[in-house]
Amino acid sequence: MNLLDGKKLSNEIKDEIAADVAQMKERGEKVPHLAAVLVGEDGASLTYVGSKVRACERIGFESTLKRLPESTTEEELLAIVRELNENPDIDGYIVQLPLPAHIDEQKILMAVDPDKDVDGFHPANFGKMALELETFISATPYGIMEMLRRYGVETSGKHAVVIGRSHIVGRPISILLSQKGPAGNATVTLAHSRTKNLADLTRQADIIVSALGVPNFVKADMVKEGVVVIDVGITRVPDETRERGYYLCGDVEFETVSKKASYITPVPGGVGPMTIAMLLKNTLLARQRHRA
Amino acid sequence: MNLLDGKKLSNEIKDEIAADVAQMKERGEKVPHLAAVLVGEDGASLTYVGSKVRACERIGFESTLKRLPESTTEEELLAIVRELNENPDIDGYIVQLPLPAHIDEQKILMAVDPDKDVDGFHPANFGKMALELETFISATPYGIMEMLRRYGVETSGKHAVVIGRSHIVGRPISILLSQKGPAGNATVTLAHSRTKNLADLTRQADIIVSALGVPNFVKADMVKEGVVVIDVGITRVPDETRERGYYLCGDVEFETVSKKASYITPVPGGVGPMTIAMLLKNTLLARQRHRA
Repeated sequence: MNLLDGKKLSNEIKDEIAADVAQMKERGEKVPHLAAVLVGEDGASLTYVGSKVRACERIGFESTLKRLPESTTEEELLAIVRELNENPDIDGYIVQLPLPAHIDEQKILMAVDPDKDVDGFHPANFGKMALELETFISATPYGIMEMLRRYGVETSGKHAVVIGRSHIVGRPISILLSQKGPAGNATVTLAHSRTKNLADLTRQADIIVSALGVPNFVKADMVKEGVVVIDVGITRVPDETRERGYYLCGDVEFETVSKKASYITPVPGGVGPMTIAMLLKNTLLARQRHRA
Repeated sequence: MNLLDGKKLSNEIKDEIAADVAQMKERGEKVPHLAAVLVGEDGASLTYVGSKVRACERIGFESTLKRLPESTTEEELLAIVRELNENPDIDGYIVQLPLPAHIDEQKILMAVDPDKDVDGFHPANFGKMALELETFISATPYGIMEMLRRYGVETSGKHAVVIGRSHIVGRPISILLSQKGPAGNATVTLAHSRTKNLADLTRQADIIVSALGVPNFVKADMVKEGVVVIDVGITRVPDETRERGYYLCGDVEFETVSKKASYITPVPGGVGPMTIAMLLKNTLLARQRHRA
């Protein structure tokens, strides 16, 4: 069994980006500037945004965190989005989801300038991804693809089963894996809540990507010997014996499944850190495109 | 075996649209206006565009056909696209593909105003389709979905195997079949040129959509009893005994496969006529949205 070590790999990617940034500085160029908008006090969101901002600092990006109260109106948030669109100093930005229920998430995402949409959530960017045009690929699927490429996992002609049809993971990764190119050319089955006999499918799979959010859902009897397992699920399971009051649990029962797998991602330390690295990569790309 | 009669169904849809148009006229409203741009003298393209224009006339749409010589430059075509974008009288338009080799097809498609892109080929529209937002769904996949819905073919929880990953058929239909909603919720496998053991997959399929363009590729031993078969392939096979010099042949060996199928589309008279009907439907939608 080979561990797909997202933590290690993401550090390598961040080092590469940091080296690029250092060269930009040497040449007297503007460095990439990522902004993040956080509305409200959701604990997980605070943690995610905090990690993104710290990662920016570490690699030499400029970063701006806009924290807004839970009571922020849709109009106020739209005004901030417009400001960020127009501010030439900002190369890319993200609006951390979820947003409070009184704000129409889709409306906000649609207002983000696609050229600054480093999360790749805007339909124009999603469409370009699906049509194999230059774009921002959203960070989680992009991170999975990069991980497969850098570990040299063979995907061409393999049968990949993706569990979960979310717009931010399951759908895009199912598209990317079946496109031409490195870490592509897989035969991809997209499974979801309406799928019957899921285990019959996963047992045929050479590659499983689980993006379901159900702790320990994928068990050893659902996979075949030699399978490649990408676990995108990160659920906070309450646990009073831990200092934080919870532990992070993936979709895959790691202890048993890893015994049959040829490659597997741990949780935490797999897809999660890759996501942050690819967000930074997208911000670097945004800077380079704006310069061009 | 039930025939999925695209010719009959498309006539019903065209009659419905014609009734809407008649009401628009009665109310003194502007009727939908579709424009088509055809560059060069390709025989199949002439036939397709001709059918579209005739269909417009039959249902009471206005139509404009812009025929340009093979020698048209990219700049000249872009100028015409801009004119069509700006002309408030045109509700929607298509640029018939393929374009001559000296014109960058992607560049032209990107220049079409997404709000007039009734072919649904613009990335912004493709992205909205994939993200389940209101858009123009391109006519062939839209036609397949409409056919499944109107014939009441059960898709939820069924295993659909789509053969071919083209941007205009295989990719979008694989997405649509797996989304929530009527004729959706299927477990979808997208197969393509790199797929190994394709027959093992198709034999598991409850629904097969073949969009390969290889005459008689899908044979009876590749399908199970009761399968639903959608044949998108329309290849012109040279045949000197026919007046036209060719006959139209689908991807599916109809004579043998139809004996095992619960539902099957003929070629011609299946997906083809539905495509034209849905282009008209999109033009009607464009008119309604522009009015709103």
